[in-house]
Amino acid sequence: MCGIVGYIGKRPAVPVLLAGLEKLEYRGYDSAGIAVLDETGISTCKTVGKLAALENKLGQDYPQSGIGIGHTRWATHGRPSDLNSHPHLDTEEQFAVVHNGIIENYMELKEWLIEQGHEFISETDTEVLPHLVSYYYEGNLEAAVRKVLEKIRGSFAIVVMSRRDPSRIVAARKDSPMVVGLGEGEFFVASDIPAILNYTRKTYILEDGEMVVLTRDGVTVTDFKGNPRSKEVYEVKWDAVAAEKGGYDHFMLKEIFEQPKALKDTMTGRLDEQKVILQEVNLTPEEVKDIRKVFIVACGTAWHAGLVGKTLIEHWVRVPVEVDIASEFRYRSPLIDEHTLVVVISQSGETADTLAALREAKKLGARVVAVTNVVGSSVSREAHDVIYTWAGPEIAVASTKAYTTQLEGMVLLGLYLAQTRGTMAPEQIGKVIAALKEIPAQAQKLLDQAENIKDFAQSFVKVEDTFFIGRSLDWNVAMEGSLKLKEISYIHAEAYAAGELKHGTLALITEQTPVIALATQMDVYEKTVSNIKEVKARDAKVIGITFEGNTDLAKSVDHVIYLPKTVSELAPILTVIPLQLLAYYVSVARGCDVDKPRNLAKSVTVE
Amino acid sequence: MCGIVGYIGKRPAVPVLLAGLEKLEYRGYDSAGIAVLDETGISTCKTVGKLAALENKLGQDYPQSGIGIGHTRWATHGRPSDLNSHPHLDTEEQFAVVHNGIIENYMELKEWLIEQGHEFISETDTEVLPHLVSYYYEGNLEAAVRKVLEKIRGSFAIVVMSRRDPSRIVAARKDSPMVVGLGEGEFFVASDIPAILNYTRKTYILEDGEMVVLTRDGVTVTDFKGNPRSKEVYEVKWDAVAAEKGGYDHFMLKEIFEQPKALKDTMTGRLDEQKVILQEVNLTPEEVKDIRKVFIVACGTAWHAGLVGKTLIEHWVRVPVEVDIASEFRYRSPLIDEHTLVVVISQSGETADTLAALREAKKLGARVVAVTNVVGSSVSREAHDVIYTWAGPEIAVASTKAYTTQLEGMVLLGLYLAQTRGTMAPEQIGKVIAALKEIPAQAQKLLDQAENIKDFAQSFVKVEDTFFIGRSLDWNVAMEGSLKLKEISYIHAEAYAAGELKHGTLALITEQTPVIALATQMDVYEKTVSNIKEVKARDAKVIGITFEGNTDLAKSVDHVIYLPKTVSELAPILTVIPLQLLAYYVSVARGCDVDKPRNLAKSVTVE
Repeated sequence: MCGIVGYIGKRPAVPVLLAGLEKLEYRGYDSAGIAVLDETGISTCKTVGKLAALENKLGQDYPQSGIGIGHTRWATHGRPSDLNSHPHLDTEEQFAVVHNGIIENYMELKEWLIEQGHEFISETDTEVLPHLVSYYYEGNLEAAVRKVLEKIRGSFAIVVMSRRDPSRIVAARKDSPMVVGLGEGEFFVASDIPAILNYTRKTYILEDGEMVVLTRDGVTVTDFKGNPRSKEVYEVKWDAVAAEKGGYDHFMLKEIFEQPKALKDTMTGRLDEQKVILQEVNLTPEEVKDIRKVFIVACGTAWHAGLVGKTLIEHWVRVPVEVDIASEFRYRSPLIDEHTLVVVISQSGETADTLAALREAKKLGARVVAVTNVVGSSVSREAHDVIYTWAGPEIAVASTKAYTTQLEGMVLLGLYLAQTRGTMAPEQIGKVIAALKEIPAQAQKLLDQAENIKDFAQSFVKVEDTFFIGRSLDWNVAMEGSLKLKEISYIHAEAYAAGELKHGTLALITEQTPVIALATQMDVYEKTVSNIKEVKARDAKVIGITFEGNTDLAKSVDHVIYLPKTVSELAPILTVIPLQLLAYYVSVARGCDVDKPRNLAKSVTVE
Repeated sequence: MCGIVGYIGKRPAVPVLLAGLEKLEYRGYDSAGIAVLDETGISTCKTVGKLAALENKLGQDYPQSGIGIGHTRWATHGRPSDLNSHPHLDTEEQFAVVHNGIIENYMELKEWLIEQGHEFISETDTEVLPHLVSYYYEGNLEAAVRKVLEKIRGSFAIVVMSRRDPSRIVAARKDSPMVVGLGEGEFFVASDIPAILNYTRKTYILEDGEMVVLTRDGVTVTDFKGNPRSKEVYEVKWDAVAAEKGGYDHFMLKEIFEQPKALKDTMTGRLDEQKVILQEVNLTPEEVKDIRKVFIVACGTAWHAGLVGKTLIEHWVRVPVEVDIASEFRYRSPLIDEHTLVVVISQSGETADTLAALREAKKLGARVVAVTNVVGSSVSREAHDVIYTWAGPEIAVASTKAYTTQLEGMVLLGLYLAQTRGTMAPEQIGKVIAALKEIPAQAQKLLDQAENIKDFAQSFVKVEDTFFIGRSLDWNVAMEGSLKLKEISYIHAEAYAAGELKHGTLALITEQTPVIALATQMDVYEKTVSNIKEVKARDAKVIGITFEGNTDLAKSVDHVIYLPKTVSELAPILTVIPLQLLAYYVSVARGCDVDKPRNLAKSVTVE
C-alpha cells in the first residue's frame, strides 16, 4: 500500500523523509520517490525498487532543504516504473503531489487537461492532481487545492507542495488515512503513524473531509470548504511495532478489518448501474463470444476463490468452467485451445505453479486473464489481461482481504462475460451490482460484531479436529474457512460437501468434533439442514451460519452466526468473514504465531 | 455371491439344502432355487427374492427325496428372475446343474447347442452346462461331466445331478471355491463351509482342477481326467461366524483378499488381444463419436474411482471429463445436453444421490452408463447401459474390492471409447490390455506380503492425524487411502495434491503426523519427491509407495512399500491395496469395529 510522508521544519527534509518511508516499508511497495523544495525549485528523485535504490540514486549530495514530501508506491494505475513513481509534478514543475488511493474520474479530468494543453508523462491517476492544482492556482495554494478537491472523485490522501509558496504543505484526506505529527517548530504529515514516531508522539488524526496546512509556525485544520476544525492532540502510546499494525494486535486482524475498504476499492470505477467496466480486459466482444471453455487455475486460497468463480460463471454465462490446482494443471495436459479462456488467480502474482500454468496455457493457445493483487508482478506482466484486486499489500501469511477481493474479481469477471455474451439482462446485472455495492458496508457490519466471535472462539481452544460443511457455494467457502483454521491454529479442520460426509467421514464425528455448517444457499437449504441433523445425531456441536431473518436454523444447531442479507451469489464474500475471525481468535487463544504460522511462506515461489 | 449346496444321504434333502443356503445368506443373493431327484424325475423350485420366498413357494408338501442341489444367486449374466435362477436343466429335464463363477465361452457354446436343437430359456451362462452334459451323456455321468469340463473356459464350481443316475452327485471346481462334507452315510458339497457346519466338521477342501463324485457310500476325488487324488480330511475348528468370513477375521479383510479374483472376473470375456468388448454398452460408433463431454457422478469411494476415470478418459480419448459429487451435481444445474455421456458409479446401485443424479442427467438428455456391482439394482435398471463390476457382494462397510473393480471399469470404459473414436492405436490398447491381464496376479503378490503391512501398521496405533499426498493419479488414490483410514480407524486422515500442501496445510505437519506419499506416476516423480522433502523438513515420518526397481525413493523417505511394475494408468489398482491393508490393520490394532464403523451404513439410500 502506498505510504506518504511530508515534512516542514528546521532539519534537512531528505533524511527525515527517508527515515519515515523506511518505517512504512512493512506495508509493501514497489517504488519510491521524494521531492524537496529549495531556492532552485522542486528537486525530485524517484526510482522503481526498494528504498535502498532511492538512497543510492540520491547519493550524499542532496539538497539541504527543510521542506519536502515522499512516497512509497504500491502500483494500481500504471505499472511500477520510475516515471509512475510519486511525487508527480505539473508541466511547469511548480507543484508536486503525492497521493494514496484512487482518483475515480481521472480519465475525464486527464482528457480535459490535455485539451487545455497539459502534457502527461505517466500512466497514473495521480498525475492529474498537480496539473489541476496548477490550473486552479491563482496565488493561494489552499484555495487551489480546495478547487481540486471539488473536482475529484474517489478515495485519497494527498499532499501538495509548491515552489510558488515555499512556506507550506497542504494535505487533505477522504477514505484514506492521514495523520499530522506535531513537533517543536517542525511538522509532519504521513499516511501512517510509524513514519513520524521517531520525531514526535503528538498527533492529529485527520478525519474524512479534512484539509490541513502545515507551516513552520503551526498547523491549521479545516474542512474542504475552509471552515476551521478544532482537533484534539492524540498522544501515541503504542510502540513502533504496534503502530505498524495500526493498533491491531496482528497484521491478519488488521487485514481482516481492511476488507470493507479493499472490497470498495476493488469495485471502484468498475461499476455502472447495470454494467461492469473492466478497462484492463481487452477482449473484443467477438473474442468473448468465442469462448467455449473457461479454466480457472490457482493454488491455496486463490484456488478456493476460483471454485466460487466456476459456479458464478457457469450460472451466469452458461459456459463450462473447470477449476484446477496449478500444480496439477501443469502436468496433466489439459484440453485447451484458442477457444479457451484461462483465468489465473494469485495474490502475489509470483506463485510459481500458477505462473507455470499461465505459461503452459499461453503455449496451448489460450487467452489468459490474471486476477492478482500486485501490479507489475510476473503474472500480471505475462497474462494477456489483468483484473487487479485493489486490496493493498497483504502482510499476514494467512490470506484474508486478498481472498474476498478475489471473490469480487470473480463476480466482476462473471458479470462482464455475461453482459458481453448477453446471457444476463441488464436488469439482472443491475440487481447483482446493487447488491455488490452494499457488500463493503455489510462486511463492516459483520466486523463490528467481531467481539461475539472472539468470545465464541474460546470454545475452540482445546479442539483438535473440526469439519466445515456446506453445499454449493457454501462448500467452497467451507474449504477456505477450514484452511484458515488449519494454517494459523494448527487444528485439523477439513471441509466437506455436506451431502458427502455420510459416505465415510461421518465416522470421525463425535461430541469432540465441532462442525461449522454454512447454510446461506437457499436452494439447497433444506438438504443442508438434513445433513446438519446427521452430525447432530452423532452428538457434534454445530455452529450454523445463515442470513439474518432465518429463524429455522437455530432449531437445528447450537449456535448461529447471522449474515446481512445479500443475493446468494455474493454470500461467499460475507460468509468467510466470521470464519476468518474465528480462525484468528482461536489462533490467538491457542498462543500460535498468527502472522507467521509455522512451515509457511507468504508467497510460494517454489513448486 | 452365489452359494451352492448339494446333498446325498439318508435325510430328506430339502430341509438340508434350505438350512445350508440359509448359512450362505450373509454373502448376499438375489434369488434362490433347489432341485431334488425322486422316482418321478427332477423337481425344481426357483424364485427371485429371499429364501423365505422359496420356502413359501415350496410349502410343506415337498418331495422327500434324499438327493438334491440348491443355489443362491447373485446375478451376473442375466438379471435376477425366476427363470435365471439356478438350478438349470437341459431340454429333457434329465440333468440339473448349479454353478458359481463365469463360463467365458458360453456364447459360442450356446450358439452351437442351439444348432444341435437345444432350446434355451434363460439369459444365463450357466444354462449351457446341463445342455452340454445331456449332449455328452452316454450312460456315465462322470464321463459326461469330464467331457464338458474339456469344453468350457472360465471360473466355476459346478454341481450336477441326473435322473439317469439317481445314485450320485458330480461336482468340479476351477477358480471358485468348493468343499465336500463327510457325514455318516451322508455327504455334502458346498461353495463354502458354513453351509455344512450344522451336519459335519469333517471336510475335503477341493483344489482347482478337482472333480468329486458323491454317492451314499462315499466320496471319490479325481482330477478332470479321472486320475484319483488322495485328499486329507480337514476338520473345521472355526465356529459358524468365523466360517462365514472364510477364515478371515473380518469381511473387510476377506474382501481385500478377494480382489485378485474380483479383478479377474471383471475383465473376463471383455478383453480381446487389442480390443475391449463391452457387450452391455449399446452405444453405436456414431453415438460414441458424438460425445462432446463426459460427466462422472458418484459418491464416496465411487467418486474417487471417477476421479481416476477422468484422467484416463481425458488422456486416452481427449474428451473433457468433469467429475461431480452426486449430492452437488443434482443441484447445480450442470451444463448437459444430448452430446453428453454421463457415467454414474455405485457399488450397490441404490445410492440415493447417485440415482437422483442419473435421473437428472436423463432428463437433460444425456446418455447414461452405469458402473455398478449389483445386477438388477435401480441404477442398473434406469441407466441406458451398464458395465457391471463382477466383484461379488461386498459386506464390509468400507469398500475395497468394489473400488478396485470400479477402477477396472474406468479402464475398460476408457479403452472402449478410445478404440471406438480411434484415439488410440490397437497396439497401444493391446499394451494396456496386456498389463491389465497381469493385474490380478500382481494384486495377489501384494496380498502375499500383507504381513509386512500388518507389522508396519503398529506404528499407526497412536496416530491421530495423517496426510496422504500424491500428484495426478496418485492424488486420486491418496483420497481413497485416506478415506479408508478415516472410516474404519477414526484417524483424521486427509489427502492432498502433493504440490498444494505448501499453500497452507503444511502448517499441520510435525513429527506427530506421518505422511503417506504415493510416487508411482513417473512423469511427476521428481516433483513429488520435492514435496516429500518439504514434509521431511518438518520432521514428519514419511512412508513412500512406488514401483519395484525404484532405488531412489528410499533415500527420501523412512519406509518404502514397493508395487509390482505396471503401466502408470493402471497403477491406482495396485497402489490402493497396501493402503487398504494399512487401514485394516490399523483399525484392528486400535480395537475398532472394522466391518461396521460407527455412524456409517453400507449403502446410503438417503440424501
